[in-house]
Parts: sequence; C-alpha cells; structure tokens
Amino acid sequence: MLSEYLFTIPLFPTHLKKTHEYSYSRIGMDSSVTPLRHGGLSLVQTTDFFYPLVDDPYMMGKIACANVISDLYAMGVTECDNMLMLLGVSTKMTEKERDVVVPLIMRGFKDSALEAGTTVTGGQTVVNPWCTIGGVASTVCQPNEYIVPDNAVVGDVLVLTKPLGTQVAVNAHQWLDQPDRWNRIKLVVSEDDVRKAYQRAMDSMARLNRIAARLMHKYNAHGATDVTGFGLLGHAQNLAKHQKNEVSFVIHNLPVIAKMAAVAKACGNMFQLLQGHSAETSGGLLICLPREQAAAYCKDIEKQEGYQAWIIGIVEKGNRTARIIDKPRVIEVPAKEKDGELW
Amino acid sequence: MLSEYLFTIPLFPTHLKKTHEYSYSRIGMDSSVTPLRHGGLSLVQTTDFFYPLVDDPYMMGKIACANVISDLYAMGVTECDNMLMLLGVSTKMTEKERDVVVPLIMRGFKDSALEAGTTVTGGQTVVNPWCTIGGVASTVCQPNEYIVPDNAVVGDVLVLTKPLGTQVAVNAHQWLDQPDRWNRIKLVVSEDDVRKAYQRAMDSMARLNRIAARLMHKYNAHGATDVTGFGLLGHAQNLAKHQKNEVSFVIHNLPVIAKMAAVAKACGNMFQLLQGHSAETSGGLLICLPREQAAAYCKDIEKQEGYQAWIIGIVEKGNRTARIIDKPRVIEVPAKEKDGELW
Repeated sequence: MLSEYLFTIPLFPTHLKKTHEYSYSRIGMDSSVTPLRHGGLSLVQTTDFFYPLVDDPYMMGKIACANVISDLYAMGVTECDNMLMLLGVSTKMTEKERDVVVPLIMRGFKDSALEAGTTVTGGQTVVNPWCTIGGVASTVCQPNEYIVPDNAVVGDVLVLTKPLGTQVAVNAHQWLDQPDRWNRIKLVVSEDDVRKAYQRAMDSMARLNRIAARLMHKYNAHGATDVTGFGLLGHAQNLAKHQKNEVSFVIHNLPVIAKMAAVAKACGNMFQLLQGHSAETSGGLLICLPREQAAAYCKDIEKQEGYQAWIIGIVEKGNRTARIIDKPRVIEVPAKEKDGELW
Repeated sequence: MLSEYLFTIPLFPTHLKKTHEYSYSRIGMDSSVTPLRHGGLSLVQTTDFFYPLVDDPYMMGKIACANVISDLYAMGVTECDNMLMLLGVSTKMTEKERDVVVPLIMRGFKDSALEAGTTVTGGQTVVNPWCTIGGVASTVCQPNEYIVPDNAVVGDVLVLTKPLGTQVAVNAHQWLDQPDRWNRIKLVVSEDDVRKAYQRAMDSMARLNRIAARLMHKYNAHGATDVTGFGLLGHAQNLAKHQKNEVSFVIHNLPVIAKMAAVAKACGNMFQLLQGHSAETSGGLLICLPREQAAAYCKDIEKQEGYQAWIIGIVEKGNRTARIIDKPRVIEVPAKEKDGELW
C-alpha cells in the first residue's frame, strides 16, 4: 500500500541527519538527559522521524515506534513514560488511501508502544509531499535507571543485539520489481532469499530493544548506543569518542542478515555494509560489557527472546576511535522458523 | 531568504491537522499529561511542527519555538524543563543556502527557548521537499503547576491575549509581490499598512505566552487554550466541548491586527477571519476567568509586557458549544511604537 511512495524516497544516510550535525548535542548520547527541579529526577527523552521503508503500513508504524524508543533503551532505560507520534501524510495519497493507511500506521505505532509498556498520548499530523513517520519518547527517572554511555574500559567486549543489513534487504526487496537493478544482484541471490531477508529485516526492525536494555543492568554494561542511520561503524565511533577512558573499539565480526553481505558486495560501493557504513533502521544495541559477562548476556537474551546476540569486538587502549579489522568475519544470520512461522 | 520556498506552502488550516483528528487525544487539552511513577508528578508535554510562514529564518525559529511551547502555557505551565527541535530542510535549497538558513532558524529557536528559561537539548533534522520546523516541549510538574482547562462556570468571561489576523497579515505581505493578488486588496489597504501588519504579526507570533500563563494562576483562571490552526472559534469550541459544567462561550469582540479585517473581507470567504476560522500561528491564550478578575488580569499583563489583552466574550449556561455573535465588534489593534521602534 505504501510502496508507490517508496521509490521517491532516498534511503541513504546523508538524508537522515541527526540535528547534532548542525551542532547542538555535544554529549554524544542517544537521548537527552535533563535534571529536573524535583528530587534527583531526570527527564530522559528522544525524538526521531524518517521516511517509510517497508510496504506494510502497520509494520511501518511498529518499526517507527521501536526506532524512536530505541534511543531510550540505548541509555539502559527500560520504562518509557510517554510517547507522542509525528506523522506527515503524503500529498500524493488520495483521501481514501489516507483513510486506510494512516490508521494502520497509527495502530502499528500504538501496538508497539503498548508492547513497550507505554502509551501514545498525543502528536501532530501534517500533510507533506513525502510520508514521514516518527515520534517522541520520554521518561522521568532516577539516576540508577539509566546508564551514561561513557564508561568503557580496556578489556571490555562489544556486543551487538541485532544483525546488520536492514537497508540492503529493504532495497533488494524493492529491486524485485526493477529489472535493471535486479539484474545487478540476481547472480548472488534468489528471489526467495530476498523475500526472506526482507521479512527478517522487518521483524528485526519492529523488535524492541527493551530486554536488551534491561539486561544491560543485570550484566553491568559500561555503555551502549543503538545502530541506526550512520551504520555500525558510525555509531561505534560516536560512542568511542565520548568515553571517559582512553579506549578504542575494534570490531572483528559482522553479523549480517543472510545473503545481504553478498548483495552489498555485488552493488560495489553503494552500501558500504562491510565497511560499517550501511544505514540501519531500528538496529540493535551496541553494548560495552565486561568480558566475563558478555557470554552470559548473549545467552540470557537468547533465552528470553529467542534471538541471538553476538560478541563482535573488543575494547583496547586507544584514542577514542573505532574501526573494523581488515577482513572481518561475516556471520550469516538466517531467517529462522519459530513456531512454524517465518520471523 | 526563505521566501522562495514559501509560495508552494499551503497556509490553510486543513493542512495543519492535529493528530487527534485521527482520533487519539480525547482529552481536549493542548498538552498531554501523564502521571509518573514518582511522587505525584506528571509529565506535561506537547509537540508541533509546521511550514515556514515568514521570510526571516531567525524570526521563523523564534516563532516556531514560541508556538510549540505555547501549548504548555495554555495549561498554565510556566516552567518548561526541556525542548527538542524538529527540522525538515528543503531539498530545493542549495547546500550553501542550507548552511546559512538552518543555523539562523536554530539560533532563533534556541534564543526563544532561552527567553522561556529552558534549553534545547536535542532533536532531529531531515531533508524534505518542504521546509518544516517544530519541536517538543516537556515539563515535569506537581498538580498545582498546571490548570486542567475544564472548569469554566457561568458568569466567567473570556480573555484573549494576542490579536487575530496573523495568517491574513502573512498572506497580504506575500501578495505585495503578486500583482493579481495585490489588486484584490489594494483598495482597502496600503503597502505601508501591510508591512506594519506583517511586522506586528511576526512580533506577536514570536512573543511567548509565558506571562499570560503565570497570570492565569494569580487570577484564578478556570481554563485556557491557545489559538492556532483552527482559528479562534475552532479552539473556543474545543475548549467549550470539554467543560465539566453545562456552559457555552459567546464571543462579542474580535481584536484584529490593524486593517487585516478589511483585507479579509476583501478576500471574500477565503480567510473567514470574522467568522473565527482564520488560522493563527502562535496565537494568544483564550482564557476563562472569573468576571471580577478579568480586568485586573488584562491590566497586569499590559503593565508587565506592554501588550494589551482583551475581554472578548462571556460564559453562559449552555450545551458546551461556542459561537461568535452576528455582528461582533472588531477592535483594530495598531502596530505600535515602543522605545521608538516599531513592534
């Protein structure tokens, strides 16, 4: 239903700039933290909005919500107190299309908020040439309820809680209907592979990072970020830059949705997936964990959610940068069967 | 600088729909109020974004900020704890234009936030066909810090704290460069009138409703709303609809930026200014006050800010509706001199 509006939409990270590029968030955190006038509490909040990237309006709503709230989860916050929704409805839609699509997006957004244990109490809708969707997530918490992401120490390891490759999967799926594009990748991937990867990407993007955030406390995480528009390396670099200690991050392993590494390679420099620059939407948390806790963290999240997490790198002594080694190991993450259903 | 992007932008209220039209805010308040897990506190927050309507990017930033935060002021909240900024930068701008315009908008927004005693700690910027600008304003407060707008009683009067006609003034100013449009109104207004009205409108839109909010407490207001996209009557009706008591609002007086009533009339049904439907941006507060307090409220705000407020109507027994009488008195509000400067 949304697909006819998709192809005018640039999916490249240059089009998804956080405002701190225009210079006002110097703190390097995924959410803003504002001390309040009331007894040691802080307001932790975040906002994000972007353009639709999947066909299904309901799923799009879920993904948008999961993406917004993920910035709280990256700070170790597990309780969101309130959400607002921001919608731009495309001028190119007929009134009838709007009346079908908009309620579906909103239902997806609200269902995801419900799953996160919060509610959507307001928002703003405007008409806009492009569809836009996003929101605001806010919580008021005590200091022990969030984790300032600046405490990595030498010897920590880096854990990633979702596979990479959502942008590649979404694009490859669009190309099924564009022969000239499809011809570029059909030697390395089948239609079935692409459909599975697309399903896996949708499922992954709609999944909340809430349990990942909760376990950060249990396993004494030293900081985290969520992987979105700037790609794995971009966000790793940003996290590294804001560490108190003189550390650097070195990434050895890249878990990628099955076949999407091959697709990315076949597209030359377009995605820069293996270089860590491919944009993700509602990506996983990248977490600095004490080495001895990391395996338990991964096991626990898999036990609770049925999803794998991966140790992808290490924290070394260094000058607050991040890099991917020359020949990283690509871990193919299959679309799995769960209760007989593809997810 | 922004003017070249202006004329593609519809300024009619149908293009500025609050999401509750898509059915999720049933509470009829300008901000959402969420009870928190911590000691009787509530999170009061609001979001809004729209399209530029004045030429000057700095002023546009100020207006956008004043407009967003006004939803808190309408609830009698005077302390905003945090703001986020939402920007859509037009794809039609060159990179150079962006690098000039965006920082100016941001500076205006931030300066206005500073004036409001708060700060902008984050936000999101995307590229979009149309420029958009808006934000999120949040505060955490105790029950006595906000005024639920449902307490009007028979005998109250209605006070308005800013003149109407901002949309008319902004449009008339654009028409100075469009002969066919200008010809329609030049019999009732001079170029100089239009420029003055435009200045007055900008000044009015950039003015914070903060003192108006503070005085709501001092003079025991029974509820308020701010006048924006749905026009005076639209917002009055919404406020009336959510009253606890069986009351109705009757509006007798319409304070309008000088000459803009004549311009609106010359444009036929286009604006519906005197019918109360002309959209306002960052309009005044419409406040229900005990009759014996209203004059003192108006005097106090004028003393503190140098701006007039007007008693524009009364609260009668009724079925929670609002109307404007058949021949309302139009109060021409001049652009004034203050310290030798036009404001």
